[in-house]
Amino acid sequence: MFAEIITIGDEILIGQIVDTNSAWMAQQLNTVGIRVQQISSVADTTKAIADALIVASARADLIFVTGGLGPTKDDVTKQTLASYFGCVLRRDPAVLAHVETIFQRSNRPMLEINRRQADVLENSEILFNDLGTAPGMWITRNDKIYVIMPGVPFEMKHIMQERVLPRLRRLSGRLPIWHHTLLTGGIGESFLAEQIADIETALPGHIRLAYLPKPGLVRLRLTATGPNLDKLKEETLLIASALKKRIGDYVVGEGDTSLETRILTVMQQAGLRLATAESCTGGDIARRLTAISGSSSVFEGGAVTYSNALKVRLVGVQPHTLETHGAVSEETVREMALGAQSSFGVDYAIAVSGIAGPGGGSPAKPVGLVWIAVAGKHATIAREYRFGKDRLVNIERAGTAALLQLWQSLINDNPTIKEAQSQI
Amino acid sequence: MFAEIITIGDEILIGQIVDTNSAWMAQQLNTVGIRVQQISSVADTTKAIADALIVASARADLIFVTGGLGPTKDDVTKQTLASYFGCVLRRDPAVLAHVETIFQRSNRPMLEINRRQADVLENSEILFNDLGTAPGMWITRNDKIYVIMPGVPFEMKHIMQERVLPRLRRLSGRLPIWHHTLLTGGIGESFLAEQIADIETALPGHIRLAYLPKPGLVRLRLTATGPNLDKLKEETLLIASALKKRIGDYVVGEGDTSLETRILTVMQQAGLRLATAESCTGGDIARRLTAISGSSSVFEGGAVTYSNALKVRLVGVQPHTLETHGAVSEETVREMALGAQSSFGVDYAIAVSGIAGPGGGSPAKPVGLVWIAVAGKHATIAREYRFGKDRLVNIERAGTAALLQLWQSLINDNPTIKEAQSQI
Repeated sequence: MFAEIITIGDEILIGQIVDTNSAWMAQQLNTVGIRVQQISSVADTTKAIADALIVASARADLIFVTGGLGPTKDDVTKQTLASYFGCVLRRDPAVLAHVETIFQRSNRPMLEINRRQADVLENSEILFNDLGTAPGMWITRNDKIYVIMPGVPFEMKHIMQERVLPRLRRLSGRLPIWHHTLLTGGIGESFLAEQIADIETALPGHIRLAYLPKPGLVRLRLTATGPNLDKLKEETLLIASALKKRIGDYVVGEGDTSLETRILTVMQQAGLRLATAESCTGGDIARRLTAISGSSSVFEGGAVTYSNALKVRLVGVQPHTLETHGAVSEETVREMALGAQSSFGVDYAIAVSGIAGPGGGSPAKPVGLVWIAVAGKHATIAREYRFGKDRLVNIERAGTAALLQLWQSLINDNPTIKEAQSQI
Repeated sequence: MFAEIITIGDEILIGQIVDTNSAWMAQQLNTVGIRVQQISSVADTTKAIADALIVASARADLIFVTGGLGPTKDDVTKQTLASYFGCVLRRDPAVLAHVETIFQRSNRPMLEINRRQADVLENSEILFNDLGTAPGMWITRNDKIYVIMPGVPFEMKHIMQERVLPRLRRLSGRLPIWHHTLLTGGIGESFLAEQIADIETALPGHIRLAYLPKPGLVRLRLTATGPNLDKLKEETLLIASALKKRIGDYVVGEGDTSLETRILTVMQQAGLRLATAESCTGGDIARRLTAISGSSSVFEGGAVTYSNALKVRLVGVQPHTLETHGAVSEETVREMALGAQSSFGVDYAIAVSGIAGPGGGSPAKPVGLVWIAVAGKHATIAREYRFGKDRLVNIERAGTAALLQLWQSLINDNPTIKEAQSQI
């Protein structure tokens, strides 16, 4: 079954917000065997919305519409939908009661525009929104299904998970899709492609291989479509084994995982604890680790030693080292890592110091220069990196490089982790 | 002039990556008076690409195509474009030499798929890509302009900034667009709308007002279109003044700014320094501040005191306080903030401790409970917040609430900041 996603709202078209909803929806739809063939972002005008509905309805079986339902802008969207489906709006008492409760609970005044949130398409089934005021709607018409949802990400996710996906799982007529993903680190996309060219060429027609690169990481994703899900799982597993045999040293994890998750998992299993001492990444590594639920069982915490004073105070860098070698140097990151390891009482510590840019560079230490040290069980390993000129890209790259360097130390230091990793 | 953006690649349609390119491009195009009327993400198949080109060409003056040019997947895209434009591909010697240099510099082996990056559409002008191997292309056909660019964000941005935008600025026939934005904090979207309903209703037809909410913040954006840019600036300035007169207490900043930028700007002007002590936000506040270039002139650094041990060790929380009141309590965040303020030697310190979820909640301290303290010049103010159940949303909300609380303290404590703020 094929789906299209229509997101409504000028805020995407003028670039004020990034559309993260569509990617999340596409992932979820994939898991229930529905393939998204197009995502369209359109303006919140009657013509743009109506045109998008007509085009998508001609191509897809399922049409998902998000956005355009907020209290200040839902008039155009709902009126356009009503006229497209040839129905009127009715005020739903259950939704209205829910909206009233929300306003009472937070002691906010209830306005007429808030009451209008309870207006729904007459021919729709309501997808109740426990987390917000705008309900979702489900409409079936000419064998097509239309799912209308608010654009607030956590409300949309709630409605999808609680109301929409369970229903879609029960729908018949969908050809299963199966994804099998390998996460690789420390190898470039084209070098990877050259290494596995023969395996890729020999893939059967119903299985495709995609390269999904991010700075420092490449995901290899096998996508298989066919009538028999068990057979798809078996086939992709075999191909994944062949890939791992070829490029196993670069494989960090398998399936829907991340470098951070893999690190936290193997460290938790081995009973190891981790801390960070970040300068140019400014807390981003700690943020990436703590974004994962349960990280506290491994991650002790860290220091954002942005100033030299805090490098001395929090992780014990010698003032003499900073004077002689500078904040961005092998000597400083080694002392940062060792200081964090000993004073935070952890098994492993990551330290990063660099020049993220755009200012602060010099001929000897240009923007993009980053030193990373990992203090581990047996040794502290420091490495120099030279990234580019974009501040945010440099911060991301430095964080990924630091986590990959930690990953390598974990494998090299711990025979049980190495053994488990060779088995995946 | 109207533009459409077509992004090519299964990775967006299956949700493996979020399309951040389109939002950035739309912002940039807006500044040169070009309005994006639709963004479409399509699969990297011949049919999907060709169909999208046909549909967009029928509606728009400018068509921007990104993605589908990586070394492992550019065949389909370039062949489809060649057949759409009725031309062949040629290998460009200058681009080839550039690709070779990149590989030599990084000591990576040069493969045939890398050489193919130098194949360009015969009828195109090359948009040289200094930062990567895939060049951009500019094609004019039937009075429409097609701009083809790689999907790697920093390469696309580079080509847009250096090659495309300067050219677009010279194009005639575009009606100027002017945006004027007010950033508000601590007031809900619908309450805001009610407060300014009469101003909104009285807007002339060529000026529109949009509400762009994020957790804790709402941007009010005026968009004016018309033949005379100076007149548009004048008109929006007048309306913005009326809005500020009405809701000035909630206005944090004006124009293309952020809460973090405003805080760093006013603190730098006042010569004040800042530090953080983060528990449940895990470094995200430090990350948000240090993402901004020049933040080191205000931000000293901070501690990610994820464990209780680090709360004691780094910011001097009393073990007795943790035992008696728990890590998520008014007493603990007060001690964290005061400890960070004194031991990091700063004027202001933010401290956050909460239960981000999904685990760790209890009836007395449910998921979503967050305590935030700001230690300032005259006092330490602590407040309790109750957010929702989503871990990442809670982290974002807590960070924004902490920064808004700091903002309020800055205004209340510093007459010069208050005075300057009332003038904006």
